[in-house]
Amino acid sequence: MNYRMVIQYDGSRYKGWQRQKGKDKKDTIQGRIEQVLTKQCGREIEIQGAGRTDAGVHAKGQVASFFTDQTLTLEEVNYYLPEDIRILSLREAGPRFHARLNARGKVYEYRLLKKGHYNVFLRRYAWQMKEDLDLDLMREASQIFLGSHDFAGYCTRASKKKSTVRRVEDIQVIESEGEILLRFRGNGFLYNMVRILTGTLVDVASGKMSLDQAREALEEGERSLAGDTAPAQGLTLVEVLYD
Amino acid sequence: MNYRMVIQYDGSRYKGWQRQKGKDKKDTIQGRIEQVLTKQCGREIEIQGAGRTDAGVHAKGQVASFFTDQTLTLEEVNYYLPEDIRILSLREAGPRFHARLNARGKVYEYRLLKKGHYNVFLRRYAWQMKEDLDLDLMREASQIFLGSHDFAGYCTRASKKKSTVRRVEDIQVIESEGEILLRFRGNGFLYNMVRILTGTLVDVASGKMSLDQAREALEEGERSLAGDTAPAQGLTLVEVLYD
Repeated sequence: MNYRMVIQYDGSRYKGWQRQKGKDKKDTIQGRIEQVLTKQCGREIEIQGAGRTDAGVHAKGQVASFFTDQTLTLEEVNYYLPEDIRILSLREAGPRFHARLNARGKVYEYRLLKKGHYNVFLRRYAWQMKEDLDLDLMREASQIFLGSHDFAGYCTRASKKKSTVRRVEDIQVIESEGEILLRFRGNGFLYNMVRILTGTLVDVASGKMSLDQAREALEEGERSLAGDTAPAQGLTLVEVLYD
Repeated sequence: MNYRMVIQYDGSRYKGWQRQKGKDKKDTIQGRIEQVLTKQCGREIEIQGAGRTDAGVHAKGQVASFFTDQTLTLEEVNYYLPEDIRILSLREAGPRFHARLNARGKVYEYRLLKKGHYNVFLRRYAWQMKEDLDLDLMREASQIFLGSHDFAGYCTRASKKKSTVRRVEDIQVIESEGEILLRFRGNGFLYNMVRILTGTLVDVASGKMSLDQAREALEEGERSLAGDTAPAQGLTLVEVLYD
């Protein structure tokens, strides 16, 4: 049976999604879930996650798939998982479904706390601003990235062998009491790409970088011209899109 | 100078608000804040909090007052506090202001997560329901407690010397996607009172207790007739009311 599951997690205490060779399985979200499934199925289970979130990054709707002969229920899997990882749904998928290869897009959210608006309950889920932000300027800057571009300048360790072209379909800047939520939708995001886009949008909105500089970093594909990488804790993988 | 401050804290890792004799100051919120103020003022500072929240209970708007000759700024006090305690405002109050004695009321919120609606980000800030709740029944039960009553049956360790009469001015049951927020406003609340009211409302709403039983517990002043004490982590002191 090919299972598809939707997973929510608080990434604060993990070294990211991906199980790492020679490292403790308990340190990664994939490793933790595989441990539980392996125990329940009585044989080694490997799961395929749609996206490899970094250390400290959260998920409200990560998707993963795996094969097993066993019949599993949501309740029993959750029972053995730590309280910061929850399976929200677990259902049978068609035999050809693969969480990563079939994904046609992803939605990420990055949460900013406005200058002077502290919120202790969001300290692990947001980035505290030290400067005032000009949201009109931020929205103008976000337009630079819409559409298909080579994002070599907006990722960490750009590969020369693999394409760094991605299509960003939408960037929303949503303001609410004390918070700014950046919502990114695209067909895929490179390593650290959402965090570097966020860092750049913040730099432009706080007047530290010009719109031209942000544009130049994209055109030149030069990482050093783009803004800083925003801290991991503000980022959440919200949804994985499939046809 | 008499200072008045508004404080926000995540109570998860503390043994409550109140500094305790012979115990580590770092374990309580009052103790932590007093440590910082004592250091900044160069002499022992004692603060008066409006309410003594229990271990694990949170605050969005706790109020405290203290005297000092020093001029303090919000920024420097926050700089030395741990990241789960934030002073939101710090200003001079009249010489007779006392955070507890002048309070004429308090607002508390208790957050419930509906059955089947997990949220890992709220695991320390909500109580996960295992049963479906009938919110009409819950609202009906909440009416029992409105007005002035002797709440001896709805508190822990009722004193025989001090009055256990309190006035509950409002109980709102606010439903949203996956959550139920109970909002209590009253002139004061006894030890564990909001948590026992919440436990009772949940018991009635899940069909474990009748409206008559809830009423009887109030009339008889008999703790064993009321519902269980709801877990600390769902409770937040939202606001302290002054004239």
